[in-house]
Amino acid sequence: MSATQKCYAKGTSAPGPVPKGQIRLYSMRFCPFAQRTRLVLHAKGIKHETVNINLKEKPDWFLEKNPLGLVPTLETEKGQVIYDSPITCEYLDEVYANKKLLPSDPFEKAQQKMLLEHFSKVTPYFYKIPMGRKNGEDVSALEAELKEKLCKLNEVLVNRKTKFFGGDSISMIDYMMWPWFERMEMMELKHCLDGSADLKKWVELMLQDPSVKANMFTTDTYKAFYKTYMEGKPDYDYGL
Amino acid sequence: MSATQKCYAKGTSAPGPVPKGQIRLYSMRFCPFAQRTRLVLHAKGIKHETVNINLKEKPDWFLEKNPLGLVPTLETEKGQVIYDSPITCEYLDEVYANKKLLPSDPFEKAQQKMLLEHFSKVTPYFYKIPMGRKNGEDVSALEAELKEKLCKLNEVLVNRKTKFFGGDSISMIDYMMWPWFERMEMMELKHCLDGSADLKKWVELMLQDPSVKANMFTTDTYKAFYKTYMEGKPDYDYGL
Repeated sequence: MSATQKCYAKGTSAPGPVPKGQIRLYSMRFCPFAQRTRLVLHAKGIKHETVNINLKEKPDWFLEKNPLGLVPTLETEKGQVIYDSPITCEYLDEVYANKKLLPSDPFEKAQQKMLLEHFSKVTPYFYKIPMGRKNGEDVSALEAELKEKLCKLNEVLVNRKTKFFGGDSISMIDYMMWPWFERMEMMELKHCLDGSADLKKWVELMLQDPSVKANMFTTDTYKAFYKTYMEGKPDYDYGL
Repeated sequence: MSATQKCYAKGTSAPGPVPKGQIRLYSMRFCPFAQRTRLVLHAKGIKHETVNINLKEKPDWFLEKNPLGLVPTLETEKGQVIYDSPITCEYLDEVYANKKLLPSDPFEKAQQKMLLEHFSKVTPYFYKIPMGRKNGEDVSALEAELKEKLCKLNEVLVNRKTKFFGGDSISMIDYMMWPWFERMEMMELKHCLDGSADLKKWVELMLQDPSVKANMFTTDTYKAFYKTYMEGKPDYDYGL
């Protein structure tokens, strides 16, 4: 980890070169997409350095590395830049042999990717519902849609008859979906899990995983950060 | 190839089991996404059978195999079902060792995937512009946006100093992007390539590729099909 967790904003000078034998993650402490990569880095025990970015006022040097200005972004010792969360995670799993998280069987791997595609239609609800509530709208229809989508995920577990989405031990797809479940209580969306007993059990199992534990924040911390976020003044350094 | 290229619609009975030693592609003859998979099947010389689907009136048996009802969908001898075009293509490249289309180097592979992510923001223009024209709207702003996005792709080639997007020979990313370029003339969008000299050269090179040649339609055929499509009565069997 870098000497500071505090975020780099516009006007800061760039951090030095990526330390030898390490990989660097450009992140934002509360970003669920960057958390995917943090979970994979931890689960695989990859030596890395984290550089947090102020996403509201991005440093020019960061935009030079990744013109899209998004986190997660990885930078290697050689200066290679990789972004987009599933791409960073698959890259790490391919480069670092320790504890493979994606199945080696092509069909099982394809299954995880198809499930991730489905899940990409779930994550927008985690923005639409809080935004709707903030604007005083009736979000009950959106909540019903989210509940239905979670029921479908529950069915996957029921049909597979496994504890996790890729089998009886944790694998890539579990880490890819986890960050949004961790934020459900903070977003007052836990009731959307009603009727999804197997998915609820999965949540409980995930909470026992060492990498999940090492990369999570409490609901109170999330609440405090999201309050500043919803007010348009995100405090990326909250709690430091 | 199956005995008939004519599409299966609602009410038809399902085709028999996937022939031994083959893989089946559910496709639609004019679909650019399914064309990605057709290009990969051809380039790798994979023995396969094609079953075309009427996407307007989908057979129930097809929806049972893939509830999303989308093409391309692959079905293996074992009854395994794989869908979503990049997932089907990567699956084929992993299972069939002949002529690898994705690079083995993890960073180069990540580069192709990042480029595909960028390109996924280009394809919507191929629907928005014709739809806008149909509705008598001024599409010049959309055309300018598409032109700018194509200029960015051109820059990738200029910076790489290679003929194709993954090097000096054709690879996965070229096939993933090709189907939309093949339709540019039909959509009267060729002027959007002005100022993108390297990309124009790439188009010329692609037109010489045997797999591209084997899987293309003439502009006149596309025009005739898209006319029926825009009128809401797509003639999936046009020309058969």
